Amino acid sequence: MSNTEKSSVIFGIYFGKVGFLTLVRELENHPHFNAGKGSVLTSDGTVEMEACIMDGRTKKCGAVSGLTTVVNAISLARLVMEKTPHIYLAFDGAEAFAREQGVETTDKSHFVTSENIERLKQAKEANRVQVSSASIVRCCDLHLATVKLITLPGSKSSSLILLSRDRSGSVSSHYQREIDYTQPIPKEPTKETTVADGDSQIGTVGCVAVDNQGNLASATSTGGLVNKMVGRIGDTPIIGAGTYANSLCAVSATGKGESIMRATVARDVAALMEYKGLSLEEAAAYVVGECASKGTAGLVAVSAKGEVTMQFNTTGMFRACATEDGYSEIAIWPSV
Amino acid sequence: MSNTEKSSVIFGIYFGKVGFLTLVRELENHPHFNAGKGSVLTSDGTVEMEACIMDGRTKKCGAVSGLTTVVNAISLARLVMEKTPHIYLAFDGAEAFAREQGVETTDKSHFVTSENIERLKQAKEANRVQVSSASIVRCCDLHLATVKLITLPGSKSSSLILLSRDRSGSVSSHYQREIDYTQPIPKEPTKETTVADGDSQIGTVGCVAVDNQGNLASATSTGGLVNKMVGRIGDTPIIGAGTYANSLCAVSATGKGESIMRATVARDVAALMEYKGLSLEEAAAYVVGECASKGTAGLVAVSAKGEVTMQFNTTGMFRACATEDGYSEIAIWPSV
Repeated sequence: MSNTEKSSVIFGIYFGKVGFLTLVRELENHPHFNAGKGSVLTSDGTVEMEACIMDGRTKKCGAVSGLTTVVNAISLARLVMEKTPHIYLAFDGAEAFAREQGVETTDKSHFVTSENIERLKQAKEANRVQVSSASIVRCCDLHLATVKLITLPGSKSSSLILLSRDRSGSVSSHYQREIDYTQPIPKEPTKETTVADGDSQIGTVGCVAVDNQGNLASATSTGGLVNKMVGRIGDTPIIGAGTYANSLCAVSATGKGESIMRATVARDVAALMEYKGLSLEEAAAYVVGECASKGTAGLVAVSAKGEVTMQFNTTGMFRACATEDGYSEIAIWPSV
Repeated sequence: MSNTEKSSVIFGIYFGKVGFLTLVRELENHPHFNAGKGSVLTSDGTVEMEACIMDGRTKKCGAVSGLTTVVNAISLARLVMEKTPHIYLAFDGAEAFAREQGVETTDKSHFVTSENIERLKQAKEANRVQVSSASIVRCCDLHLATVKLITLPGSKSSSLILLSRDRSGSVSSHYQREIDYTQPIPKEPTKETTVADGDSQIGTVGCVAVDNQGNLASATSTGGLVNKMVGRIGDTPIIGAGTYANSLCAVSATGKGESIMRATVARDVAALMEYKGLSLEEAAAYVVGECASKGTAGLVAVSAKGEVTMQFNTTGMFRACATEDGYSEIAIWPSV
């Protein structure tokens, strides 16, 4: 994998389970993200989607892999959590369970976008497996937010629209801003820092959230890696790798799944808080800086106290965050 | 799951990669263990095998799930680790990779034993998903050991034969002992303690090992749960759940996979050593006692220094251990 790849997560609010999952589903349905419609393609040109959800209070969790027709993988992950004695169903068995549960399915071709056909072609020409990622990170503990990322073809900037719904249910457009894709010139150029390539502009979607009582949850959904082998499972559905939540924090990770699995990234953030007494930010910094290989991982996390951190060891990570106290951030490259 | 279920792991020696995996393969080929031939059946009466290997020094790992024709799942997990850019392949993609690599495959019916057809029937009649487990645990840092468990039909005892190969390659029969399946009567009977039922006498196979240089490795192979849903993935192939190794320790867990995944059992043993400075035994005791739900988990672990621990919160765990300093143990029930 190139070190120029950007990792990504969508960061959302846990405002009742329905709202939490509505946000992830909207992102899955958005063709600009590598999940649901917009999922990147395997080496065979097929889509194999995976998703995971974990409730920090109960530690209940659900995960799915190898979905080919399910419109919202995260919804099926939730059903695995709620309706089966298991945590994790995959491939034909997961598809059969989807039909049994009556979740929305569609033709396999629905998920395949022309952009992803082109991405696969490029990856095959370059003979590489590729992280295809970008992200918007959204955190809020008052509003249910919907994030729309709109990029004009060929443009180097996107408009971001945050739609929020307050407690009364009324929806308003929060703000809109241009995101500058132009990578800043580093003060001390290194080998790792090169201009980001265009085909890494869509990303895994993730959502970590805390409610007013400090209950935490994490959800992640992805199409995986461009040109991945058929049958490949990444970090997203793995409890403790791409997705984790307990009573201390909720974490959703993105990047090169193999690196994240090896470093048990999401669990280690929580373990450092639990076993070493680190703060959320210290724990995330240690995991991203010391545990996961450089250039492979990013994460968003929230603590039960409402602290937020978004860290990455890639060149950039698409992220956006808005907290109740008025702080907001939309960025791709490292903060100066 | 009933609290009377026993968890299980096979504990072996890492004496060069070939030897390490030879041991796991032998156990997979043994119809008395729930892995390879002898794997328990899904609700559809099919076999879906999974396995995982992790090298503690490099943190390289390989995992497979949903195998239906591969004779030795652990061999395919190793090939995923060595020959692909991925860690984890599952179901049709994993089967296709097996064919591409030319590993030994056979007809699906090869793995289905009459004992497991009966177990499935019983589980369906009782309408339950069931841990089917027992184990022999073998630890040795001088010899490559092969463990044979022989149980006469209807008997309450088994003979255990440990064949060991010393550094020169010569093989000798180490010892043979009767294992008493009769559960001791507890001093203070509790609700959880009942007589173990007969259909939990075979188990997941696991192997953790350390070589003379302190290099650690872990491998686990299983057929999963009796009457599991088709497509169900358990803890065995999940890095940090059923299988984990780093520079401090190697851990292989067994029991109810869902509980082990939720508690990230194998990684947490290592994390408690790494982040809290606990000894191997303290770490394992904490995870088995405080993290995994009672009646659901057992593990074997070895540290880089050669310390060994075998702990479980189930009624019993089949285990055997022999260390270089002459200590040996074969047991099912808790030590008095």
